[in-house]
Amino acid sequence: MSDLRIAVLGVGMMGADHVARIGSKIAGARVTVVNDYLTEKAETLAATIPGCRAIADPLDAIADADVDAVLLATPGTTHEKQLLACLEHGKPVMCEKPLTTDVATSLEVVKREAELGKRLIQVGFMRRFDAEYVALKTLLTDGELGTPLVMHCVHRNAEVPPNFDSSMIVKDSLVHEVDVTRFLFDEEITSIQVIKPAANPNAPQGLQDPQIAIFQTASGKHVDVEVFVTTGVAYEVRTEVVGERGSAMIGLDVGLVRKSAPGHWGGQITPSFKERFGLAYDVEIQRWVDAVRSGVNVDGPGAWDGYAAAAVCAAGVASLESGLPVAVEMVSRESITGA
Amino acid sequence: MSDLRIAVLGVGMMGADHVARIGSKIAGARVTVVNDYLTEKAETLAATIPGCRAIADPLDAIADADVDAVLLATPGTTHEKQLLACLEHGKPVMCEKPLTTDVATSLEVVKREAELGKRLIQVGFMRRFDAEYVALKTLLTDGELGTPLVMHCVHRNAEVPPNFDSSMIVKDSLVHEVDVTRFLFDEEITSIQVIKPAANPNAPQGLQDPQIAIFQTASGKHVDVEVFVTTGVAYEVRTEVVGERGSAMIGLDVGLVRKSAPGHWGGQITPSFKERFGLAYDVEIQRWVDAVRSGVNVDGPGAWDGYAAAAVCAAGVASLESGLPVAVEMVSRESITGA
Amino acid sequence: MSDLRIAVLGVGMMGADHVARIGSKIAGARVTVVNDYLTEKAETLAATIPGCRAIADPLDAIADADVDAVLLATPGTTHEKQLLACLEHGKPVMCEKPLTTDVATSLEVVKREAELGKRLIQVGFMRRFDAEYVALKTLLTDGELGTPLVMHCVHRNAEVPPNFDSSMIVKDSLVHEVDVTRFLFDEEITSIQVIKPAANPNAPQGLQDPQIAIFQTASGKHVDVEVFVTTGVAYEVRTEVVGERGSAMIGLDVGLVRKSAPGHWGGQITPSFKERFGLAYDVEIQRWVDAVRSGVNVDGPGAWDGYAAAAVCAAGVASLESGLPVAVEMVSRESITGA
Amino acid sequence: MSDLRIAVLGVGMMGADHVARIGSKIAGARVTVVNDYLTEKAETLAATIPGCRAIADPLDAIADADVDAVLLATPGTTHEKQLLACLEHGKPVMCEKPLTTDVATSLEVVKREAELGKRLIQVGFMRRFDAEYVALKTLLTDGELGTPLVMHCVHRNAEVPPNFDSSMIVKDSLVHEVDVTRFLFDEEITSIQVIKPAANPNAPQGLQDPQIAIFQTASGKHVDVEVFVTTGVAYEVRTEVVGERGSAMIGLDVGLVRKSAPGHWGGQITPSFKERFGLAYDVEIQRWVDAVRSGVNVDGPGAWDGYAAAAVCAAGVASLESGLPVAVEMVSRESITGA
Repeated sequence: MSDLRIAVLGVGMMGADHVARIGSKIAGARVTVVNDYLTEKAETLAATIPGCRAIADPLDAIADADVDAVLLATPGTTHEKQLLACLEHGKPVMCEKPLTTDVATSLEVVKREAELGKRLIQVGFMRRFDAEYVALKTLLTDGELGTPLVMHCVHRNAEVPPNFDSSMIVKDSLVHEVDVTRFLFDEEITSIQVIKPAANPNAPQGLQDPQIAIFQTASGKHVDVEVFVTTGVAYEVRTEVVGERGSAMIGLDVGLVRKSAPGHWGGQITPSFKERFGLAYDVEIQRWVDAVRSGVNVDGPGAWDGYAAAAVCAAGVASLESGLPVAVEMVSRESITGA
Repeated sequence: MSDLRIAVLGVGMMGADHVARIGSKIAGARVTVVNDYLTEKAETLAATIPGCRAIADPLDAIADADVDAVLLATPGTTHEKQLLACLEHGKPVMCEKPLTTDVATSLEVVKREAELGKRLIQVGFMRRFDAEYVALKTLLTDGELGTPLVMHCVHRNAEVPPNFDSSMIVKDSLVHEVDVTRFLFDEEITSIQVIKPAANPNAPQGLQDPQIAIFQTASGKHVDVEVFVTTGVAYEVRTEVVGERGSAMIGLDVGLVRKSAPGHWGGQITPSFKERFGLAYDVEIQRWVDAVRSGVNVDGPGAWDGYAAAAVCAAGVASLESGLPVAVEMVSRESITGA
Repeated sequence: MSDLRIAVLGVGMMGADHVARIGSKIAGARVTVVNDYLTEKAETLAATIPGCRAIADPLDAIADADVDAVLLATPGTTHEKQLLACLEHGKPVMCEKPLTTDVATSLEVVKREAELGKRLIQVGFMRRFDAEYVALKTLLTDGELGTPLVMHCVHRNAEVPPNFDSSMIVKDSLVHEVDVTRFLFDEEITSIQVIKPAANPNAPQGLQDPQIAIFQTASGKHVDVEVFVTTGVAYEVRTEVVGERGSAMIGLDVGLVRKSAPGHWGGQITPSFKERFGLAYDVEIQRWVDAVRSGVNVDGPGAWDGYAAAAVCAAGVASLESGLPVAVEMVSRESITGA
Repeated sequence: MSDLRIAVLGVGMMGADHVARIGSKIAGARVTVVNDYLTEKAETLAATIPGCRAIADPLDAIADADVDAVLLATPGTTHEKQLLACLEHGKPVMCEKPLTTDVATSLEVVKREAELGKRLIQVGFMRRFDAEYVALKTLLTDGELGTPLVMHCVHRNAEVPPNFDSSMIVKDSLVHEVDVTRFLFDEEITSIQVIKPAANPNAPQGLQDPQIAIFQTASGKHVDVEVFVTTGVAYEVRTEVVGERGSAMIGLDVGLVRKSAPGHWGGQITPSFKERFGLAYDVEIQRWVDAVRSGVNVDGPGAWDGYAAAAVCAAGVASLESGLPVAVEMVSRESITGA
């Protein structure tokens, strides 16, 4: 079996990271084409990889005969066109979140894939590949907590880039908890409320941080999420599921425990998402590569998942403005698949 | 200095526990009078305690010349009359929660005490005496977390008595988090929302359990509380405060950690409130005894705190019905103290 | 039942602490006599306690008609004479460790008590009253770990007084692990080896610190102890028992857990033995008071336990010099009790 | 750069695992030759790997023109001859422990590699690649604990194969702590003592389990190790280093923490070494592949490390018999390198 030939579109921080990962950690795959709107950047990178070319036009890159599959790390606004091109060429595509930047185009992408009758799109919700989330999912699937009833999530960053605004907290941060909820509970979120506590004095002027989100799911489960992106402390992601027969928590940040004068004990909190989920990214890419090469349909999060996330986030932004619960509007999955 | 002579009114589970505590753990105090609406029960108990009599009428018990101070463990509906009698006789009284069973009578009690110009009433919020809560309070007072912004609370019971109804979850369970919020943040709760997730299948028919309560405080701090009283697991009380310079959590239930076949590690969760807060009860009573004997005014939670709790709970019950945020209505403290 | 009248002999740090404890935390007891070789110190203290006198001669204090029981917190060298006086007067005595300062006199005390046919002496091994040790003991008694095989102990102090020498590490520190071993395993220690690692550069000149002690018990159980008294960190006491069906550990110093910038999490280690075992001291004294007042023989650690500790420590000091295993020499218990 | 062509010698459990790893997780490498003394087994395996042949004679496999490097997972008794063949052909070799089965042949191998003046051999001490051990090493290197003084290690298996004997506990289990000690402290072990507690009643007849090993290092550091291979519980590896400025512990087995009725909390202990160190194996192999392909000398544990381990284990087996401390005999490293 020959290596999977991948085109990586967008070689900013995330895309370049994926290029390096494929080259150094992923068996059975190699990057044959790179593309970026900064042409020179792509060319410089291509020159460092044996058998890799830069192609200036993203659609040409997708169409190229030397490309079996596509990894999309371009800005979200360009995803729709690029995803549709991948579908047109029948090429599997691994798409970093978001699927697209609004609900309507996300749905359009979902429909076009459904028409093909073949799963080609995977979205980059890497937490599904993290060992702790997998363990928690298994616990739920095995029924060991009984019916899940309530979930508490915490999502904290030490800091965010200067351009980060209040709605990005929903679309870029909270979106992960949206997918976690759907992944763990296997049902859609039907309502979201965003609460705005008094803001952190250290947050940039105008940034509503922290935010508290309340999800209600189809069967009435309650999820609350604290998103706090200017804590100045560290990267902290914690999830507790409370079920009818017990509860379980992940993300306690334990590990090396140290004692030192004067009278302290403790450890180091994961400094950033790279350390926390680096292995999850590896597993994610490798499974996708393996699935694609073997011809078996990928089973990671798909276009529908990207669409659902977009729908919930749109409602979340609305609730952020109104302060009230906002119903999530989604078409039924059956209307797409015809099943 | 001679021993403090205490009348214990109400010798059901809680009252009998206090009688035993005073006899065996509390220096400088003794029970000289017991009272219960079940006369025989009080007499039987009195017979076991040297120098102790049963008095049939609670008001007579309060007035008795052999009584320096009163401990009230009677049903909440009788508190108002008994508290006023204590005030009339100028006798210090330690009153188990609630202060009274509604907001109006609570306020009346507060006013009558204020008219005396002397602090005589203490309410039984024993968490203020628990070592972990004290440590958390100290952390906040010392400013080590900066401005507190958000608090997450969990309050779980394995089970509740058969007559426990949905509003008792608010008035008997959530009330503790009400006081914890006021104690830790030193400000009033201005709004409460109670969310009703799909009920625990194992809860008695008609009981809304779990419940999620959202408090907003005067300065805009956010507090969420999971109250879940039919977990079947254990007694779990957990509190996390998130501030501008870090967060802190208490109630993680660690202690003896054990590993056993096949492949498990863990420990025992505190089985009930007696184990969890037994020492706090001791400290509470002892400090009160000491304060009363030395003539220094008591500094534990007072009538105002009982009143504030009643006000918040009333709003909570309203929100439980409407599902919407309900403003808490309270008179200003200045209108009472005249300060 | 009237209060137990206690004479406290020796009112240095430990004795004064006990005097305060009895006055403020212990029900059913009061200090009627205090004694110290610094006469003025005892008189000053007595003046602060209602109904309490200072008596200059310790033997007179023991004999005094106003004394039901004696608490010994005098220097170890004076214990033998004072203990024998207590036995002579048939007065119960709570004796801070050591029982006496050498094996022979300890044995003499054991014999004299045995001749009386009545248990009068309790030795101050307060760990037996600590909740964690009690939980560990219960686990073993209930057979949940099966046969215990190995125990690992850690005993660390941040610092010690300037006069602390290498043998005091054995006699004053390690002695607690000696009693813990005997308490948990219900059998005697038959061999001890003290290993001398390269010394801590921060330890005072000449102090062998840390020390590693290896005990073997009668049935062949292995116990190792790290004693390290100049860590500069905190007071840490940890015990892990490994049995045929699992292991259990106490003393992990968890509690309030805090996260703070830059990227640390952790808590506060118990700063000293007062915080760690304060409650154990209370329980210890109270149980003793109760047992004495009720006329039931005390069941805490007795003279035999003090003797056994002395025997093991003597062997420990010998091993400290030779670096080799040293057999512990003890008479059989049957030779004393005649049973 | 073309893929590294690897011959895997020995395709039992460990070798087959490495073959699978290279095929599915390791970038830049492929298995071109497999060998086993069970010829058919090798042929069956080769048939499943594109471009891979079975070669019946291990020395032919090493010499094969289609082989750049060798991975040795054959029985330890065959290592010497195979390692020398690798050296003769100038081929890098990754050798599973032990280097050879006795001290003399280990030293011979070290010498032959030294004569070549080129580092070709790496030994399979994979803990050096485990994230927690790396974090602990970094802590020590950065001096955050000051001078290390004492180390406590625990090494527990739930069970062992039927043929496991008392000396294998030293040579196959304890050997890892030997390397951990040398890795963390950067100095040789100079003395070892193996203590034999009363055996676990559940251990096979004749197996001395648990065993306690005491190491002393060149500078006088103390290391104790509990090796207990029939716990019936799980795979537990724990290491605590105590230094002059604090202590640090790894291997606490925390992760997903769960609460369940009736009143338990806890998590799952790592079931076996595959889960615990699987990632470490990946990193180990990948770094080795990368180093070999780039022509830079490998920096993992080398032949000298294998020799040192053999020397310590030989002394350990001797102490196992005598029960006394046994000095470790080794030539000086300078006598080999001539430096």
